[in-house]
Amino acid sequence: MKRPALSMVVRVLAASLTLAAGHALAQTDTLPSWNDGAAKKAIVEFVQATTTQGNPQFVPPGERIATFDQDGTLWVEQPVYSQIMYCLDRVPAVVKAKPELAAVEPFKTVMSGNREAIAKLSMKDLEKILVATLTGMPTEEFRAEAKKWLDTARDPRWKRPYTELTYQPMQEVMKYMRANGYKTYIVTGGGQDFVRVYAEEVYGIPPEQVVGSAGGTKYGYDKAGRPFLLKEPRLLLNDDKAGKPEGIHLMIGRRPRAAFGNSAGDKEMLEYTKAGEGARLAMLVLHDDATREYAYGPAKGLRASRIGTFPQSLFDQAGKQGWVVISMKNDWKQVFSFDK
Amino acid sequence: MKRPALSMVVRVLAASLTLAAGHALAQTDTLPSWNDGAAKKAIVEFVQATTTQGNPQFVPPGERIATFDQDGTLWVEQPVYSQIMYCLDRVPAVVKAKPELAAVEPFKTVMSGNREAIAKLSMKDLEKILVATLTGMPTEEFRAEAKKWLDTARDPRWKRPYTELTYQPMQEVMKYMRANGYKTYIVTGGGQDFVRVYAEEVYGIPPEQVVGSAGGTKYGYDKAGRPFLLKEPRLLLNDDKAGKPEGIHLMIGRRPRAAFGNSAGDKEMLEYTKAGEGARLAMLVLHDDATREYAYGPAKGLRASRIGTFPQSLFDQAGKQGWVVISMKNDWKQVFSFDK
Repeated sequence: MKRPALSMVVRVLAASLTLAAGHALAQTDTLPSWNDGAAKKAIVEFVQATTTQGNPQFVPPGERIATFDQDGTLWVEQPVYSQIMYCLDRVPAVVKAKPELAAVEPFKTVMSGNREAIAKLSMKDLEKILVATLTGMPTEEFRAEAKKWLDTARDPRWKRPYTELTYQPMQEVMKYMRANGYKTYIVTGGGQDFVRVYAEEVYGIPPEQVVGSAGGTKYGYDKAGRPFLLKEPRLLLNDDKAGKPEGIHLMIGRRPRAAFGNSAGDKEMLEYTKAGEGARLAMLVLHDDATREYAYGPAKGLRASRIGTFPQSLFDQAGKQGWVVISMKNDWKQVFSFDK
Repeated sequence: MKRPALSMVVRVLAASLTLAAGHALAQTDTLPSWNDGAAKKAIVEFVQATTTQGNPQFVPPGERIATFDQDGTLWVEQPVYSQIMYCLDRVPAVVKAKPELAAVEPFKTVMSGNREAIAKLSMKDLEKILVATLTGMPTEEFRAEAKKWLDTARDPRWKRPYTELTYQPMQEVMKYMRANGYKTYIVTGGGQDFVRVYAEEVYGIPPEQVVGSAGGTKYGYDKAGRPFLLKEPRLLLNDDKAGKPEGIHLMIGRRPRAAFGNSAGDKEMLEYTKAGEGARLAMLVLHDDATREYAYGPAKGLRASRIGTFPQSLFDQAGKQGWVVISMKNDWKQVFSFDK
């Protein structure tokens, strides 16, 4: 009569194992929004090789660092970076606080609401708007304002919050890498304080894993003697192009094992990543899908774009240095989570 | 006959539970190098309150950030910071590479080996030595040099590597907090690149969790076209005093829940930490143990010190703002791991 009891235990154990195996099987396609092809294969092979003990390309958990550009790599950057929309939308509040700015350019043009004129603003004008809307306030006040905007602003094409315009395939890559012990970082030319407001909720990336363009702050006390940090118009890190590896060294202190980008601004980050020893993965998203998102280059004869430029020279360098180009049109089965 | 089988299962389960309970009991004194007293009690009560679900002071895991000053808080800072010793020891190599410096102050004095004269070098002289020994080389070359020095240099009093002169009670606090979901950071006035060389091995703190004084780097290519980062004499972050909360905002982006320091340089970090809502812990190590380590203040009538100054005003502020002062003499049963 002992047999049945033991066999029951065995059966329960076997059932658990079957469940676990089923779970593992269900997880095999961790990249369901990707079509089979060179890009998907490169990701899966890299993760498997670097996380399989005994594999010559094995990477210890602590060194599993993966960096992701944001604009154009994790979410939509056309027709203009979301953060620029935030800054333009903040101008009326800035002018209300300092009415003398209403008659001064570029604030006058922004207040006019003339879209054509606004689109023609120079980089110098934009910088003035960035300084006026991103600095001069305590960090916590900035955070609250940005959060409020993110909750209410809508992208004009999709009529959705900007934070919903993230690429489902890239969300899957980040989750897949994290599930395999990779620490995922955003390394963006965008404002570090801005991206940190939503990165945890939107990407599962905590503030301390967001590296971006960063200004200095100044420690002081309010009237009640309570300390605060004032955002200053003093650029510490311009986290674009060569600033990306410099920012990675400053904020992470280790060379990434994998890096993902989509434009000329990511070239140095990918070079720096691939220059390390052992297995390294470098990938670039090519926006060649005018129907589901946008198509721009000018690589491969796509239209040129001031935002997220992907020149032919970058495409050629990718080929030479073993970086993998992701075709949005061909490699992605689905672009957004809300696509059916 | 089914009963025995079931009771065996129960007994096995019970045995496991007993083991688990024994394990928990064994872990109750996670701070064996601490004497019972207000300091130990403050640490344990803080960790228990912030990690017990349902407790009104519960802190979600992601927000469990604890910051630790290094010099004088985690390891010995007297008679002079270890990094200064590194810089002085590097001077001969710098002079060898640039022989014209041999006749120029302050290098001439350092090369003379006259300890009294070296001890009298001004801050401006020291800065020149820091710039000459910490910048101008690729990051990886600096890392290799620092590592070599750390492996061979010995503290003159204990005749041991500097990296062995860490405080056992503070190592226990860091381990205890990490075991309870806290992310431990070093926030030091020392060089970020220097501390990152050994922090993982010595404290279990990875490079990306070391915030320190940081200079800029410049991305470039060597003759073989291989990219590297050159350490530049351009200070991005002076991570001392007000620079500590500023550095925390830059590098972590969240306010710490707990902060540990030992000198006037940590005042703003502790203020900033305690100014947040909910449970916060702020602690200061007072070096009042001339026998086992050093005694200096000038708080509490201890001798004044240029290194790691703990003024009476800081002691008084601690009392007013609910910061807990740790008496090395009374609160620490053991100072170093090699103490018997």
